[in-house]
Parts: sequence; C-alpha cells; structure tokens
Amino acid sequence: MKAELLTIGDEILIGQIVNTNSVWMAQQLNQMGVQVCHMASVADDETAIVDAFDAAAKRADFVFITGGLGPTKDDITKKTFANYFDAPLEENQQILDDVQSFFTARGRDMGRLNRMQALVPKGCVVIRNSVGTAPGMWMQKGKTVYVSMPGVPYEMKEMMLKTILPKIKEEYALPFIYHKTVLTNGIAESTLSELISDWEDALVHSNIKLAYLPQPGMVRLRLSTQGSDFDQLKKAVAKEIEKLQVIIQKYIFGYEEYGEESPSLEKIVSDLLRARKATLSIAESCTGGYVSSLFTAISGASDVFKGSVVPYANIIKHSLLEVDKALFDTVGVVSRECVEQLAQNVLKKFDSDYAISISGIAGPNGGTAEKPVGTVWVAVATRKDVRAIKFQFGDNRQRNIVMTANAAINMLRKVILKEME
Amino acid sequence: MKAELLTIGDEILIGQIVNTNSVWMAQQLNQMGVQVCHMASVADDETAIVDAFDAAAKRADFVFITGGLGPTKDDITKKTFANYFDAPLEENQQILDDVQSFFTARGRDMGRLNRMQALVPKGCVVIRNSVGTAPGMWMQKGKTVYVSMPGVPYEMKEMMLKTILPKIKEEYALPFIYHKTVLTNGIAESTLSELISDWEDALVHSNIKLAYLPQPGMVRLRLSTQGSDFDQLKKAVAKEIEKLQVIIQKYIFGYEEYGEESPSLEKIVSDLLRARKATLSIAESCTGGYVSSLFTAISGASDVFKGSVVPYANIIKHSLLEVDKALFDTVGVVSRECVEQLAQNVLKKFDSDYAISISGIAGPNGGTAEKPVGTVWVAVATRKDVRAIKFQFGDNRQRNIVMTANAAINMLRKVILKEME
Repeated sequence: MKAELLTIGDEILIGQIVNTNSVWMAQQLNQMGVQVCHMASVADDETAIVDAFDAAAKRADFVFITGGLGPTKDDITKKTFANYFDAPLEENQQILDDVQSFFTARGRDMGRLNRMQALVPKGCVVIRNSVGTAPGMWMQKGKTVYVSMPGVPYEMKEMMLKTILPKIKEEYALPFIYHKTVLTNGIAESTLSELISDWEDALVHSNIKLAYLPQPGMVRLRLSTQGSDFDQLKKAVAKEIEKLQVIIQKYIFGYEEYGEESPSLEKIVSDLLRARKATLSIAESCTGGYVSSLFTAISGASDVFKGSVVPYANIIKHSLLEVDKALFDTVGVVSRECVEQLAQNVLKKFDSDYAISISGIAGPNGGTAEKPVGTVWVAVATRKDVRAIKFQFGDNRQRNIVMTANAAINMLRKVILKEME
Repeated sequence: MKAELLTIGDEILIGQIVNTNSVWMAQQLNQMGVQVCHMASVADDETAIVDAFDAAAKRADFVFITGGLGPTKDDITKKTFANYFDAPLEENQQILDDVQSFFTARGRDMGRLNRMQALVPKGCVVIRNSVGTAPGMWMQKGKTVYVSMPGVPYEMKEMMLKTILPKIKEEYALPFIYHKTVLTNGIAESTLSELISDWEDALVHSNIKLAYLPQPGMVRLRLSTQGSDFDQLKKAVAKEIEKLQVIIQKYIFGYEEYGEESPSLEKIVSDLLRARKATLSIAESCTGGYVSSLFTAISGASDVFKGSVVPYANIIKHSLLEVDKALFDTVGVVSRECVEQLAQNVLKKFDSDYAISISGIAGPNGGTAEKPVGTVWVAVATRKDVRAIKFQFGDNRQRNIVMTANAAINMLRKVILKEME
C-alpha cells in the first residue's frame, strides 16, 4: 500500500512555515505499514493542484492532502476537489450542525463565511472535525483514494487518529513495517561504512534495508524491514544488530526503538547517572554553556546536574576554579593541564561524583599554528581520578561547539560504563 | 524565474527528519526574486528520481536537489544524475585535491570511499564544498538547470550562499524583491495585530505585503514588496516603518535588513556592549546555561562575555555565589531577593559591568500553588544598582527556557539603552 502526501499552500513554498504535518503523517503511516513514496507541496492554484492529483494517481493508492480548506478567498482546495471529482458542492447537515455547535460553544456567531464550511462535494465520505470547523473529505477516483484535511496541525492529527487511520486499518490488509536505529558516536560515516562493509553486503540476503543518517558528531544506522509477521521482523533485525555489535560495539551509544523518539546522548548519560544516584558538574569554556543547557533541557535534570561554571575569561578559570595561573603563560589554557585542573576543581566545588571540563578554540578566530581553530581539550573527572583527551575539529564555530559537546558527553558515558564493568 | 526543490532520501519519507533545507532554500530564493513553485521529496530510487526530474522540467527553470550524495551505498543521486544527463562519471582533480586537503587538515586518511567523492558527471559545473567532501553539481538539460547539493544543511547552505546564489544573480535578470522585518518583543501577536490594525488596513494602498512571524517571546513583522526600482521599493517600505514606529516603538528591538540574517537579541545586546567596551556575566539557574550559550555562539564573544555560573543545585547559589542561605526557607530561591543577590554577586565575582541572573521553575514539575510552573524571576545588575522583574510563562519546559532567555536579554538591552539616554 503506497501513499503520497500533498501539502497545499503558499506559506510552505515561500519558506514561511516548516512542513511538520508531513513528518508526522509519514511516521504514522509507516508505523501501520503504509509506505510513503512521495511528498509534494504546491501553491494555492487550481492547475498545480490538479496536476499533483493526476501525478499522485500514478504512484499511490492513497493521497493525503492538507491545507487550503479555510473559508478565505485564497483557499481553493475544496472547489478544486469538487471539480476534480465532478461532484457539485452541497450543504451537509451534520457538518452544518458541527460548525454551528463549534461557534455556539465559544459564544460566537457562525457568520456567512463559516457556514460555507458545511459545503462538501456530493458523494464524498465526510470526516468530522471535532476541534475546528473545516471538515475532512474522502473521495475515490479509479483505484486511488484522496483524503483532504485542514492544514492546522492539531485538526489534521485529530482527524487522522480518530477517523482516517482506523478506517484504513479496518478496510485494508496492511503489512508490518519495522525499524530499529543504532546510534553511533566518535566515528566518521565513511570509516564506519568501510568497517561494516562486509556485514552490509550480506544484508542483501535478508529483507532488511540499511540507511546512514549522519549528524554533527554522530551517525545513526537505521535498519528497516517489512512483512506479515511482526515478531519475525523484530527477530531478524535483532539478529543483524547482534552481528553489528561485534564489529562496532565501542562506537554504539544507544538505540532508537521502533516508534520511539531517538534518545539523545545527554539523555542516555543522565539516565546512567540517575540509576547510580550520581551527580555531575561542568566547567565549560569554549562551549560557553551549551553542554549544561543540553543536560538542563531534560525534565528532572536537578536529580543529576548540580551546575556549572563557564569560565570564559581566562582570569575566571583562576579566580573561580583555581587553575594554576602559571599555566597561562606556559602550556596555555587549551591544554591537558588546564582541563584536568578545571575538571577536578569544579568537581570539588560542586561536590559532584563526576565532572566534565572543556577548553578549546571554537573559532573562527584565536587559532595558532600549534593550536589551530577546532583544537579542543576535554577532561572527565571522578572522585578518584581524571583523564583528558585532545580533539581536533574543523573551522565552523557552531559545529565545533556541537561536536565538542557530543564528544565530551560520550567521554563521560564511557567513563561511567568502564566503572560499571 | 521559477524553481523547484527536490529532496532525495528515505529519511524524509519515513518521517525521520524534518525537511528544514527546503524552508531555508525557499526563503533565500524568494528574497532574490526566484519563485518556488513546487517542492517534492522522493526515495533513494532511480526511477522515482528520474520521474521527478522529468516532472520538474515542465514546471521550473531551476531544480535544486539535496540529498543522496554521501559516499555510502544507499546514496544513488550522483549515479542517477550522471545517467540522466548521459554523462559518464569522471574524476575531477580540483575536487580530489579538496577532499584530500579536507582529510589532511583533520589528520585523517582519505580512504577509498572518500576518493569517490571526486567523481562527477562529465561536463558538469562543479560546486566546491569548503566544509565537507561531497561536491555540488550544476547541469543543464534543455532550458532547465539542475543543481545537486549534499543534504547536510550546513554544507548545502555554504554552497548556496558562496557559489550558487551569486552565480544565479550574475547570470539571470531577476525582479527586485525587497523585504524588511521589524523585530518586536514583549507583546503578543493578537495584541500587536489590534494595535496596528489601522496601519495594516492602509497598507492595501501600497504594493507592500505584511506577514506576522511569531516565535517564542517575539513577533517579527515582515514587509515585502517587489518591482523594478530597488531604491523606490526601499523608500516605500522605510516610509511605512516610520509610521509603524510611532505606534509600537517600545516593542521594537531591531530590524532585519534585506538579505541579512535576522539579528538575534543577543547579537544586538553584544554589539551594544562592545560599543561601550562593557562586559557581561551571568548567573542562570532554570535556564541551565542556555543564555550563556546564546552569547557564546557569537564569534568574538570573549570581548564582552566574561563567563557565567549555572547554580542549578540550591546549595551552589550559596557556596559559589554567596546567596544568603536564610532565603531558602523564607522567600525561596525563586524570588526577587535571590535573583538580586545572584546578579550583584556574579557581577562582583566576574568583575563585569553588567550581570543577568535568572531563577525560576521551568517545569514540568516543581510548581506550587503560589509559584506555578513558568514562574521566573530575572534580575539585571550594573555596577551601580540592580532591578528584578517577575515573569509568568506557560507549562512547556523548553518553551519556558527560550521565553526566559529572550525576556532576560531584552531586559539587559533596556537597561543599557536607559543608561545611554
């Protein structure tokens, strides 16, 4: 079963809004075994819409259309819909009642424009809208089903979850689709690809597809498969992941389970800390508060995060965190010695079980021949010892900050796991 | 001049990532007078890609393609590109040198797979990639120009800004499109809309369109117009903005000039500080490092930003920033007294000219009847005095953090401007 998602509206084409409706619909459809084969966005223009309808019929069994259902003049989806199916618009009593109740409940007058919401093409299956005024419409032409919904995200979601997806599940036999994603850190996409090349080649004998999803500082590997037996699919993927673990275990920091959001590195580390009732403090210079903000973005951060210092000016590294001033003129603040002292001292000051410290040159200025932009020292301290690693990133400031954060949090993760062995 | 945006990759179709590339490209193209008439996303599948190329040729003068250029096996855009133009892949020396330098600079080996990045279809105009390894490719078939770029957002953006957009500007005659955006803070969209209603109604007599672009804590008002005389357009918009200033001056914190990125509140404040050779330090509790990370994301932050403390655990507010412990059991740490002490003490410790302090309940837990989730106290200290304001935001943690940051930075901006009067 194949689906196409069609968004209608100028606001997408001028880049004024992000098309989050399509992301959500794709996730929902995929999870129930409907494959999304195409997405398109077109303007509020009858010819463009009709062309898109025709093109979709060649590719898809279902076309999910959002947008252009408002009562104002620039919204022309419904008129086009009626013309396309050669079905005149007629007033639907149920929808008229719904719209009337909607306004009555809000103590407002329905008005002439809103009454038009009750007009639907003759013969269409009406999808009621319990949170807004524009109804959805379900029509068929040849083998293709067209479902038109409002563009307002929560109205569309309500219709999909309450009416449309259950209707599809009931009326069509769908295969199961299963995904699991392996999260890796500390290895470049190309190196990873070479490392797992044999394993990847052997995948062709299974029904499993692999996708590389690189992000700054990490690569996600997604395994997808489909079939009629869900448990079988799950087992097949688990088997391949086991083989993969043998090859790249040290780079894997987590998994994204089917239907769940991908856990971030900081979430994984926070959970590790929480399970051990351990706490963290941070001294971060070149990342300027970014690593702390990642940990504190998680609800319940106060269980594990005691706080941090951003000793951006060098003198603060000395005055607040007692880094030996003599270092400034010898090895400098971007050095093993400096981050080791920072980590150990912030740990003591905050009385935490672990500490991360970071000092580097984010760029674009401040680099030298010896320490070019992108040079970053990271240390992780425990109550017993401290270790430091030097990283060399690129010349993009924002990217260096993100890469450093990932590297530092991953370093802490490894230290904790090592202690648990 | 019409353009189509084509995204290639299964990760969009299964809803794994949001298509932010298309939003950004649409904005950029619109600003320079190129109309985006269609957007599509297709799978990593040769037939689907070729069909999309053919369909685009009927609609658009330019087709901007992103994705599928990685060196791994699931990326097939380049092969398809070469087949479509009947141009065999050949190694390009310049790109090979670029890829080689990329890896040398990072102290890594290029490897066999990455060498393949230097393969490009014969006869294509190569777009160099200064921040990654996959080159862009510019090919023409009939009247339609196809430009293929990597899907990694910052690589795509770098190519567009550095090479592709300037090339289009130089080679094609485009109408002038002029935008200027008024940045407001501290007023809700609906209130703003009522306040400027008469001014907005009068806009119909001009050739100027208005768009409301709300973000957490701020509303941007974009005025757009197009025509053949750039100076004329600019003057017409300036005239309308003058009228607007009379109505809402106190909410305006900046302007986004045509073709420039919107100046963030923190950039505006950093520039104010720099101009006065003044420095800033921060004590932020519930925002957990986010405000600091905003200031340090700006290149040259060390000129104005001395650092910060994130006293997330209450005891740190006392031990590191000497907040009177007696407060904890009386007014609590989310109080005027606490933020005033935090601001004054961090200012002294960091010897800065200004200090921001923040203490609040970001949520979703921790609220009480008296201080519900979303209650936030912010203080701004100067070397002479301190003032504090209480804000009441909503119940979304992430949104509360962003709203607090905007409110706090705007408060500092007003204090500085007041001193300059």
